Amino acid sequence: MIRVGIVGATGYSGVELIRFLAGHPHVQVAHLYSSSAEGESLASVFPHLHAHPLPALAKIDAEQMGAENDVVFLATPAGVSAELSPALLQHGTKVIDLSGDFRLRSGETYQNWYKKKPAGDEWLQQAVYGLSEWNGTEVAAAKLIANPGCYPTATLLGLIPLAKSGWVHSKSWIVDAKSGVSGAGRGVSLGVHYSEINESIHAYKVAGHQHTPEIEQELGRQAGMEQLVQFTPHLVPMTRGILVTAYGQLEKKVSAADVQELYESAYEGKPFVRVRPPGSHPRTKEVYGSNYCDIALHVDERTGRVIVLSVIDNVVKGAAGQAVQNMNLMFGLPETAGLSLVPLFP
Amino acid sequence: MIRVGIVGATGYSGVELIRFLAGHPHVQVAHLYSSSAEGESLASVFPHLHAHPLPALAKIDAEQMGAENDVVFLATPAGVSAELSPALLQHGTKVIDLSGDFRLRSGETYQNWYKKKPAGDEWLQQAVYGLSEWNGTEVAAAKLIANPGCYPTATLLGLIPLAKSGWVHSKSWIVDAKSGVSGAGRGVSLGVHYSEINESIHAYKVAGHQHTPEIEQELGRQAGMEQLVQFTPHLVPMTRGILVTAYGQLEKKVSAADVQELYESAYEGKPFVRVRPPGSHPRTKEVYGSNYCDIALHVDERTGRVIVLSVIDNVVKGAAGQAVQNMNLMFGLPETAGLSLVPLFP
Amino acid sequence: MIRVGIVGATGYSGVELIRFLAGHPHVQVAHLYSSSAEGESLASVFPHLHAHPLPALAKIDAEQMGAENDVVFLATPAGVSAELSPALLQHGTKVIDLSGDFRLRSGETYQNWYKKKPAGDEWLQQAVYGLSEWNGTEVAAAKLIANPGCYPTATLLGLIPLAKSGWVHSKSWIVDAKSGVSGAGRGVSLGVHYSEINESIHAYKVAGHQHTPEIEQELGRQAGMEQLVQFTPHLVPMTRGILVTAYGQLEKKVSAADVQELYESAYEGKPFVRVRPPGSHPRTKEVYGSNYCDIALHVDERTGRVIVLSVIDNVVKGAAGQAVQNMNLMFGLPETAGLSLVPLFP
Amino acid sequence: MIRVGIVGATGYSGVELIRFLAGHPHVQVAHLYSSSAEGESLASVFPHLHAHPLPALAKIDAEQMGAENDVVFLATPAGVSAELSPALLQHGTKVIDLSGDFRLRSGETYQNWYKKKPAGDEWLQQAVYGLSEWNGTEVAAAKLIANPGCYPTATLLGLIPLAKSGWVHSKSWIVDAKSGVSGAGRGVSLGVHYSEINESIHAYKVAGHQHTPEIEQELGRQAGMEQLVQFTPHLVPMTRGILVTAYGQLEKKVSAADVQELYESAYEGKPFVRVRPPGSHPRTKEVYGSNYCDIALHVDERTGRVIVLSVIDNVVKGAAGQAVQNMNLMFGLPETAGLSLVPLFP
Repeated sequence: MIRVGIVGATGYSGVELIRFLAGHPHVQVAHLYSSSAEGESLASVFPHLHAHPLPALAKIDAEQMGAENDVVFLATPAGVSAELSPALLQHGTKVIDLSGDFRLRSGETYQNWYKKKPAGDEWLQQAVYGLSEWNGTEVAAAKLIANPGCYPTATLLGLIPLAKSGWVHSKSWIVDAKSGVSGAGRGVSLGVHYSEINESIHAYKVAGHQHTPEIEQELGRQAGMEQLVQFTPHLVPMTRGILVTAYGQLEKKVSAADVQELYESAYEGKPFVRVRPPGSHPRTKEVYGSNYCDIALHVDERTGRVIVLSVIDNVVKGAAGQAVQNMNLMFGLPETAGLSLVPLFP
Repeated sequence: MIRVGIVGATGYSGVELIRFLAGHPHVQVAHLYSSSAEGESLASVFPHLHAHPLPALAKIDAEQMGAENDVVFLATPAGVSAELSPALLQHGTKVIDLSGDFRLRSGETYQNWYKKKPAGDEWLQQAVYGLSEWNGTEVAAAKLIANPGCYPTATLLGLIPLAKSGWVHSKSWIVDAKSGVSGAGRGVSLGVHYSEINESIHAYKVAGHQHTPEIEQELGRQAGMEQLVQFTPHLVPMTRGILVTAYGQLEKKVSAADVQELYESAYEGKPFVRVRPPGSHPRTKEVYGSNYCDIALHVDERTGRVIVLSVIDNVVKGAAGQAVQNMNLMFGLPETAGLSLVPLFP
Repeated sequence: MIRVGIVGATGYSGVELIRFLAGHPHVQVAHLYSSSAEGESLASVFPHLHAHPLPALAKIDAEQMGAENDVVFLATPAGVSAELSPALLQHGTKVIDLSGDFRLRSGETYQNWYKKKPAGDEWLQQAVYGLSEWNGTEVAAAKLIANPGCYPTATLLGLIPLAKSGWVHSKSWIVDAKSGVSGAGRGVSLGVHYSEINESIHAYKVAGHQHTPEIEQELGRQAGMEQLVQFTPHLVPMTRGILVTAYGQLEKKVSAADVQELYESAYEGKPFVRVRPPGSHPRTKEVYGSNYCDIALHVDERTGRVIVLSVIDNVVKGAAGQAVQNMNLMFGLPETAGLSLVPLFP
Repeated sequence: MIRVGIVGATGYSGVELIRFLAGHPHVQVAHLYSSSAEGESLASVFPHLHAHPLPALAKIDAEQMGAENDVVFLATPAGVSAELSPALLQHGTKVIDLSGDFRLRSGETYQNWYKKKPAGDEWLQQAVYGLSEWNGTEVAAAKLIANPGCYPTATLLGLIPLAKSGWVHSKSWIVDAKSGVSGAGRGVSLGVHYSEINESIHAYKVAGHQHTPEIEQELGRQAGMEQLVQFTPHLVPMTRGILVTAYGQLEKKVSAADVQELYESAYEGKPFVRVRPPGSHPRTKEVYGSNYCDIALHVDERTGRVIVLSVIDNVVKGAAGQAVQNMNLMFGLPETAGLSLVPLFP
């Protein structure tokens, strides 16, 4: 059994990792770490885990964590992972980081968008961007995974085939994204106060969200050509789910059938991406609790645009599920191990 | 007192008309009409109106309605208004139609998008598009008002100043709109079933929603130049509210301050449009239950785009409230009569 | 115009007072006070008030407040009102306190349930419990109003006629209450975190909620006989609304018609209490945003119990609306002044 | 592999059965039946099942169904199961019925509460009430299971230990239950219309819900003594979850610790019932998507009552999950097979 450690087990991504790993046939949830609840049981923080046999929350100590785990998931805030990872890696422990610390190859870009000191360059270059469907080979060989952000996951899976095709003007991308509130984490603030969020929708960080450079970097890398992306996130009164509605200006006449075929071919054999039938309007609820990304393609001949709809569960494919998928690839396990769940509906 | 009749009082727009008109200082809710609940009290259909003195639901008879009202609101499905209006108008009764029947000047365009027989040309030409802030003069003189659709209201108020300015490429408009479920009306269907809608968001009618030509027609008319609009509606798990996130490609370098000034000047003295401070992200909840449209402007220098955020309560400014505002203008009453409500928050 | 001051304007009860008072024909919102946002505009805290002419938030100073207002509403946390009120009253300024500080006649009981030092006895004896429908005469003569709690309002209006009748065993009352989240106020905590509350219901403070002695005191006073009440509050995933489902064991055979008649007679002429037809199941949404309390009566012959259903909007009839109703009575204004609103539906 | 057939696969209980059975190690989802969607794929009705290998929907034919399955789940409306079951049983096929048709031993009682013709007496006597934790031995030997209703499951698991103890007055039970909307099924009606249900709570069928006699029958049978239950259901604006708040009058002085011990001992070794620590207030979200029933006990010394809080996911432990648990017992499989899921949180 692979010994797994989780840092930040008291957050939403951390506890979702446990949901998948507790039932995973090849791993043992060996250690849980928390800076805020050291010594407590996780069930005291999350009563839904009452009666589940889990290790008590232990102190965060990079040396110790490196010694007692084969792989460590870092479900920690931006800034923390950059500090913990080097010691873990030097121990030979693999690291899957769910924060944004290793996603951007350029430390300068990180500093501009995150307003924090970046990780050292040697680590940024070593990190593999864990978009399992597109970087599977690199992931399999990686020691340090930068697990993609929730918005970038839904966006990139939705846009890469088109970006690679060259059919869309590379500066025309508009990504209008809608997220459930769990994406904001478990920390308390007026921004996640029930009475302020319920029965309301709003955009935030227009033209300024830190997932923008992540999307542009990876979309450009896959397309082999720089891409410019207008990214707007919104907060929707629901707990889980991301819907990306993305628009691209077609450079030439392309039919809906062409785009459909492009995607079905791109994702053939990929168990977690479901290209939905032509004309579909996928709902976030249709992937609830699962590791799926469902994609539907529309071409508007009137305007010459392609519209891509892409839905994920932000806590699963957008965080913990994809992290487990990456772990599976890193350890040579079946890609779907521990993850083969039917979405929860309704 | 102005004698008011309401047809379709058992729908959401109809009952919201009553909320405003029951407290309006210059009108009397004289008659309510319904095809489905003739003879019943409205409180038997809507218990929240228990103990409110209202006329019983009467049969729909155009002659009778024309004889006994000074103005009739038609809160009826598409197709019905086109049949009722001529008789009412011939009686000298003013008509405010909340359906889509008189909004498009071209019967052919109506037929293409609504898949129904259009109203006669003489009525289409006579109808005034009741976007109060921009067509106030025509509204004041009108006999027949085509009350704007919910999405077009939020979109047009948000885009007209820019479209008139000529700063934005006329074919670059992308309108990504998000609506609460009440916009779908009170009729039952799986599409408004609680368990299917709750905790989920989805796009619908991508590239095919009938509000598209309405937006293009009026945006073009105000700009004095054809405009091409990509319009995508979404259903959000909330009852009321529309948020429009609109994108336009700037044709020249324009600063955020320029755009802010353009809007503040355009809406000066307009009591129901609030241009919010630079950098704002308005929430639909901030106009809940009120006749406001709140607008915020963002310029992204990186991408050369302007992003407009516009929020309304779809049942108020997007339907019943704007209809009352139009009635006020038609009868020479203060524009805000019966409408001066603080939004319900939280 | 009556000069009104509001302390705690940055909370939900405070801002709801403004919704009613801004449109009230006989008062002027003269001053707003806040300890946390002194000097700011209220719109900077509550953007839904953008463009509304309101005084800036001023410092809390009892002397000053007494000098510049005819009446002051205290929408402050428990403990604060007891300190501010004496100075205000000594100025001849009337006080309407929305906290729990003056509701319990016994300081000892207050200390037991609130775990705070009680107000002085002279003030506790002087305070009038502002349940407008039952204490109207005392309210009209009062200088200091203890505005009832949200749960007690729905409970007492629902139970007083039966308690007075003597038909129900005085120790048999069970009050199972369900509240929206706004009742918890605007302060941030995990208990009001969207992702924890959404899609979930739970009971809290079973056998220990501080509204229990308030209900027992007033129910007993009206009945002229001690009453024992089992009170259980629940948090429901919605913003506004309280539903009380109350059970009483009948001491003798009483028909549904008897109970119906008892209530219709008790509330005849009371504009804000609507006794719904026999067999009704009122919904909190049917009083949304309004000052109504809707009541329905059921008798179960099989079990010998009466079941009372009572709904209010907790922010209105359970707080700000009832406070304005009390102000109207204190100043000899029409009871419904500023309050005659149709509920917001849907 | 056990060959499983599901009738009514297009309803919420039916599709939830598939979620559990598709991942069950010992069964094969062999056949799906539907009267409304014969010939279609289930994914065309439920897009969240896109790409899942499942048999097409077949015609309902009792003979055929008996021949081709080892066990058939009937997720059908009341009235249908009574007709289908005899033929299935005569084939030697086991039947697990999720409707109310076989739950009441007395046909007369069924007729009184369901207003439908009851099943024949020979079948009513043969059916085993599938409350797995209390009737496990009978379930293991059964051919025909009457799977308990959602409300009765939460109520009975919550009250049986106390009812058996004799500590509570047998006529004092009050069960105030709150349910998510999925309990009403997938059929469309105004009662499940999003805009009518959202932001609202209401009671329904006060003193008249058909689960009342089911609760009384089984509580009485377990206690060995008739029990009288006041049962009130409520509809809560959420999709899944039931919370039962139950009240019993203690006949003698019993401490909270006594009750706690009674329950911990009663449910020792029962994997799906979690007795929560003293003082807990379980949330429906804490069992979301899982087969758990979480129970917390409170004793109010002031009133002499015990208050039991009990939560389940209505679609799982209240329907499909308990049905699978019963199947496991009937076929000698581990009780938790296919069911060991961590709840989905948040």
